[in-house]
Amino acid sequence: MARLVGNALIGQSGGPTCVINRSLVACVEELRKAREVTGIWGARHGVEGILKEEFVDMKGQSPAALAALLDTPSAMLGSSRKKPKSDDCQKIFEVFKKRNVRYFFYIGGNDSAQTANIINELARGEDYQFRTFHIPKTIDNDLLGSDHTPGYGTAARFVASAFMGDDLDNRALKGVKINVVMGRHAGYLTASSVLGKLDRDSGPHLVYCPERKFSMRRFITDVDRVYRRLGRCVVAVSEGINKGKGPKKLIVYEAGMVMLRPGVRKELPKDEHGNPQLSGTGILADYLVYRVRKALEPKYEKTGKKLRVRGDTFGYLQRSFPGVMSEVDAREATAVGKAAARFSLSADIDGSVVIRRKQGRRYAVEIDFLPLTDVAQGERRMSKGFINAAGNYVTKRFINYALPLIGKMPKTGLLKAKPVKKRR
Amino acid sequence: MARLVGNALIGQSGGPTCVINRSLVACVEELRKAREVTGIWGARHGVEGILKEEFVDMKGQSPAALAALLDTPSAMLGSSRKKPKSDDCQKIFEVFKKRNVRYFFYIGGNDSAQTANIINELARGEDYQFRTFHIPKTIDNDLLGSDHTPGYGTAARFVASAFMGDDLDNRALKGVKINVVMGRHAGYLTASSVLGKLDRDSGPHLVYCPERKFSMRRFITDVDRVYRRLGRCVVAVSEGINKGKGPKKLIVYEAGMVMLRPGVRKELPKDEHGNPQLSGTGILADYLVYRVRKALEPKYEKTGKKLRVRGDTFGYLQRSFPGVMSEVDAREATAVGKAAARFSLSADIDGSVVIRRKQGRRYAVEIDFLPLTDVAQGERRMSKGFINAAGNYVTKRFINYALPLIGKMPKTGLLKAKPVKKRR
Repeated sequence: MARLVGNALIGQSGGPTCVINRSLVACVEELRKAREVTGIWGARHGVEGILKEEFVDMKGQSPAALAALLDTPSAMLGSSRKKPKSDDCQKIFEVFKKRNVRYFFYIGGNDSAQTANIINELARGEDYQFRTFHIPKTIDNDLLGSDHTPGYGTAARFVASAFMGDDLDNRALKGVKINVVMGRHAGYLTASSVLGKLDRDSGPHLVYCPERKFSMRRFITDVDRVYRRLGRCVVAVSEGINKGKGPKKLIVYEAGMVMLRPGVRKELPKDEHGNPQLSGTGILADYLVYRVRKALEPKYEKTGKKLRVRGDTFGYLQRSFPGVMSEVDAREATAVGKAAARFSLSADIDGSVVIRRKQGRRYAVEIDFLPLTDVAQGERRMSKGFINAAGNYVTKRFINYALPLIGKMPKTGLLKAKPVKKRR
Repeated sequence: MARLVGNALIGQSGGPTCVINRSLVACVEELRKAREVTGIWGARHGVEGILKEEFVDMKGQSPAALAALLDTPSAMLGSSRKKPKSDDCQKIFEVFKKRNVRYFFYIGGNDSAQTANIINELARGEDYQFRTFHIPKTIDNDLLGSDHTPGYGTAARFVASAFMGDDLDNRALKGVKINVVMGRHAGYLTASSVLGKLDRDSGPHLVYCPERKFSMRRFITDVDRVYRRLGRCVVAVSEGINKGKGPKKLIVYEAGMVMLRPGVRKELPKDEHGNPQLSGTGILADYLVYRVRKALEPKYEKTGKKLRVRGDTFGYLQRSFPGVMSEVDAREATAVGKAAARFSLSADIDGSVVIRRKQGRRYAVEIDFLPLTDVAQGERRMSKGFINAAGNYVTKRFINYALPLIGKMPKTGLLKAKPVKKRR
């Protein structure tokens, strides 16, 4: 087989993660070894940069400069939320032809696989020799075809650590604590809140994922039950909890309708259906705190107990906090970047890199690839077996699945001290 | 001098920190060496546990059990927000006499120094042989008499790391990002947001502390100026920003008045003046986002640019996140716990342990103590020389002061790649 001579272009897309730059560096380093790859370029801000021909030279980067990116969170080339339409894809293909781009790597979620696929079809239609690979990344862990996705393990480690610390905090100053976790459609990240628990009575005591319909009544009953037993309760809630399909069924939408003055609500950013977009704010946590207080405070006041209820929204820290990294996730982010370059150099093939977990007691994976369309066609939700029947916690099966992905947690412990006998 | 034989009691108070258990462990280990200390007890939930005689045995803890607490965030004995009134202090003193408590250590802020002082005065009045030391801790860094306070360095490291990551995130997906940081009266923690900057144009670009009056008009002008220059802007805001003294002058109060429906606002928890207490929620960040959008969005829309504005509230993670620790802070938290025990065993003295920074180019401290009243009498604000004249950023002097306290930051870097020449 004749080698395909030409330039390589790499882009990053979607929400940043802490390990996405590892995939970038690994891909660049692998491409460097191949003589047929003449230029190695990075596209600034994904498809936006490609459309504007804003490329940077990655071949000229020193090994030290690349090494400095390994532990640096966020997409170093810049990212983009743009989903290119078919005429954008046509323009992108024109740029590729003009610049002799023969290898294209797009690091991102299922939209990125879709983009790579459309451009690939255009190339095929014109008999333009071209190879493209989608390199998976998302903290949501919702890509089809893979056991799990690079970016998830580190974000899950952050969330597990945050809940470990927050539960310890809530043992010291007791109350009800509600934390909102990223993940609009998939509950994987919210579910990972349980992975740092120090004992059976550690929080989170309740976990709500978007895959199950949320009932405010049951939620409050759940909180009350835990609080009565322990005098404290830590709750993990996905930002995407809902009463059914569609933006108006989101609890965050209800939060806006109940809490905000109509004039303020009107001014909030709208989604494509004209409904107020309420993500990226603290209102869901605030609303759940409000509902719990309203329902339970009077009850506990009667017994002379002051109910303390607080809410936090973990926000962007979940995907970009430096210095907290799952070593497993970091290793695999490197592996998928390297594999994408190798696959593309090995034969006239295209695809989306996937991670498969090997059978067996010890955690091990193999890196393979699937047709782009297999990964592009949708999102993966939490499997039914990962959420308990009541819809308010995860199962042992989920813990077995997720625990190997977050790496070794920091060493911590609970004080187990005997009470000193009281004296009359 | 005759040795004072009797029991020792240790308590923890106020907001948890990541290193407060180090002070506890160090104090216990030092007391163990002294034969005159018969029992070493921990009080559950500070003064609340003392009033109820809820003590646990700390002498019986194995070295391994104590070692497991070193990297465990939050107050392991349980904490308390209770400020004991004078009759509470009298009751506490009665408990001390009954249980032959001769050594009392209270780890906390200035309220804890105050409590220790009142009990000490009662003991003195009755000629009850008694020694007490206040052990400093607070993430707010607002204790009088010390150069800085254990707990601050680690919380500052968390905030600096969070802003480093969030700025990288905001470079990848550009916009205005507003983050609310803890610290109601003192701006030290908010100011620490600048300590992880990777270059001159890294965020935070603007920093607002509670020590300066906040002007919404100037804030929006500042944001606009940075955004016009860089196409992005990261802002650090203290939860305590205000238009003057008193709860009604807090911007978070204004946020509630402007954004929330009156019925909802009415139901929120009240402070001692009957004003809605709005801390521990995301409303301040949401409000600042709303104001920036309202003021600037129409302007940028005219130029065809979609302004992206987001807000996060870092919340309790700042004080309790495991696995992120300043080694300097950890060492000093151990040192103050040990010093308190040693001082109390050395002579008939009482006081509050303080940290003094030594003169010289290399960072070094000495541990000393001051009379309890010196530390109990108030809170320390940021010195004027730490905030710039415009009141929207910190000074070089602040950076020189704070940088040695947060330890070595994670290795990260920015991509410095040359643009590839465009082709016509």
